[in-house]
Amino acid sequence: MPKVQAILEGILKKDALIASRLLRAVDDQDPKAVEILEKIYPKRKPSQVIGLTGPPGVGKSTLIDALVAKEREGGACVGVLAIDPSSPFTGGALLGDRIRMSRHASDPDVFIRSLASRGRMGGLSASLQDSLVVMQAMGYSPIFVETVGTGQDEVEVLRVSHTTLVVLAPGLGDSIQSLKAGIMEIADIYVVNKADKDSARTLQSEIEDLIGMKVYTPEDWQPRVILTSPAYNQGLKELQEAIKAHWTYLNQAGRRRRKEEQIAKQLVVGRLQDGILHLLEAKLNHLLGGAWKDEILNPYTMSNKLFERFKQQVVDET
Amino acid sequence: MPKVQAILEGILKKDALIASRLLRAVDDQDPKAVEILEKIYPKRKPSQVIGLTGPPGVGKSTLIDALVAKEREGGACVGVLAIDPSSPFTGGALLGDRIRMSRHASDPDVFIRSLASRGRMGGLSASLQDSLVVMQAMGYSPIFVETVGTGQDEVEVLRVSHTTLVVLAPGLGDSIQSLKAGIMEIADIYVVNKADKDSARTLQSEIEDLIGMKVYTPEDWQPRVILTSPAYNQGLKELQEAIKAHWTYLNQAGRRRRKEEQIAKQLVVGRLQDGILHLLEAKLNHLLGGAWKDEILNPYTMSNKLFERFKQQVVDET
Repeated sequence: MPKVQAILEGILKKDALIASRLLRAVDDQDPKAVEILEKIYPKRKPSQVIGLTGPPGVGKSTLIDALVAKEREGGACVGVLAIDPSSPFTGGALLGDRIRMSRHASDPDVFIRSLASRGRMGGLSASLQDSLVVMQAMGYSPIFVETVGTGQDEVEVLRVSHTTLVVLAPGLGDSIQSLKAGIMEIADIYVVNKADKDSARTLQSEIEDLIGMKVYTPEDWQPRVILTSPAYNQGLKELQEAIKAHWTYLNQAGRRRRKEEQIAKQLVVGRLQDGILHLLEAKLNHLLGGAWKDEILNPYTMSNKLFERFKQQVVDET
Repeated sequence: MPKVQAILEGILKKDALIASRLLRAVDDQDPKAVEILEKIYPKRKPSQVIGLTGPPGVGKSTLIDALVAKEREGGACVGVLAIDPSSPFTGGALLGDRIRMSRHASDPDVFIRSLASRGRMGGLSASLQDSLVVMQAMGYSPIFVETVGTGQDEVEVLRVSHTTLVVLAPGLGDSIQSLKAGIMEIADIYVVNKADKDSARTLQSEIEDLIGMKVYTPEDWQPRVILTSPAYNQGLKELQEAIKAHWTYLNQAGRRRRKEEQIAKQLVVGRLQDGILHLLEAKLNHLLGGAWKDEILNPYTMSNKLFERFKQQVVDET
């Protein structure tokens, strides 16, 4: 890697090659890369991070592609971060996404990166945030983050997003009833995509009914429902405006400040967790004191003992 | 909760109600539940844990359903653990799975449990293993674990499985080429499901070509490729035999012992990681010493400092 100062300058000058190299070094746990991230962190510009989630097949990638085009019309420099579902099986699907995005791939003002979670030891959280920090320092805004819509990866993306879009589509067999439990808590904006299809209106009013069941104070953001159909250029401007309205909302009354604090704490915890996990894996045999030499000891007993030691020494002493 | 001794006896007597309550208490982080798990751990019977993964739509649930039926014919008591993709969106799909499984739902010798990963703080690993420990103490064997085939959840399931089945189906658009990178490392048995369809044979020979590219020593398990079609009762017996053959292989030359040791270490690390994460989240403000009172400090600096303290006190002193 080039010198720290040269990398730092490259990032601030939006050098995509230097940024990619830095992010690869971060993935490889290069200590120099972390040193650079530490220096980059205060240089971030305020960029809206938009997390998109929803079941497979609703057209999230196509929607992002269309939103990127809209933002480019307005002259914005846009970031796209795709969480590679990192199953070997979805390699094909990802390739498809990249092809769909390829009209932006050669645009220097669009920075597209995919992040693998497969085989990763520890959470996705720290790596995800590292990528966002670099994109924000480069000045990309907004930044779209696409999840695969399942499991822990989704949760971690939404925890670091300013604005959450839940993308649905009519006729996918997902009963709105089954969505009830989780859906009310996470969406800032609901997108009914493929709105040219029949029953899009039905889905819209079902979502609106759900929203209507919750009581919002004037301080709360009231979720919006937007119908889109990228193929017919329908609803994109309205969606873009709703996203901006949520950003305006966050920038009032210290809300963004509080959100940024949460995100920063998340990064501290994520990095600590990753570091501790690596250390535990590396030193486990040593910590266990050869406990497993002859027979398998009780892992509940072992973890309780080790945890108590951690708790007393690190937390109680402070 | 009833007394510890009564719960312990209930589990060993295969009382499904007591088991479900215990597992719910584990999910709620009830300290008494962990105490019981610690007592249950040495009572586990040797049960084969079979992890199934593969892209959505290949028919994993239907395949498990058919394998459960086959095992029941032979008189085995079977466990099924489904990793709820825990997106609110897949509630519908899960419901479908439950309906497909419903012919076994009333069978007392089939224990079906689903495990949510959504909203979970920390990894899935510890909870997953807790469920397996309970099922193994109850004497269920084999135990099928179904993943959604993406992301961290999948990785964690495969790390605690004895035998890994990679389920594929013809015509799903997944180029075998794209599978190359990850697939060779994880599968003990490849299942080409929906084998009644055209091009199943093509998929089979593509997989066999991939297997053929790797050099196996006589000590290694050589992955098998099995064609199945549950609808036509095709290949199920062959698959069942391949699964048993892998279990026999593991039970030779101390292989199962080494695998169990890895799994137990995984449990120690998983539990420690969860415990430390909870502690960090709870005590973070305290640890940060009000650092965020006025402005957002650099999370890289903060996490480095906290990590160094952890490292010195807990690891270097031992």
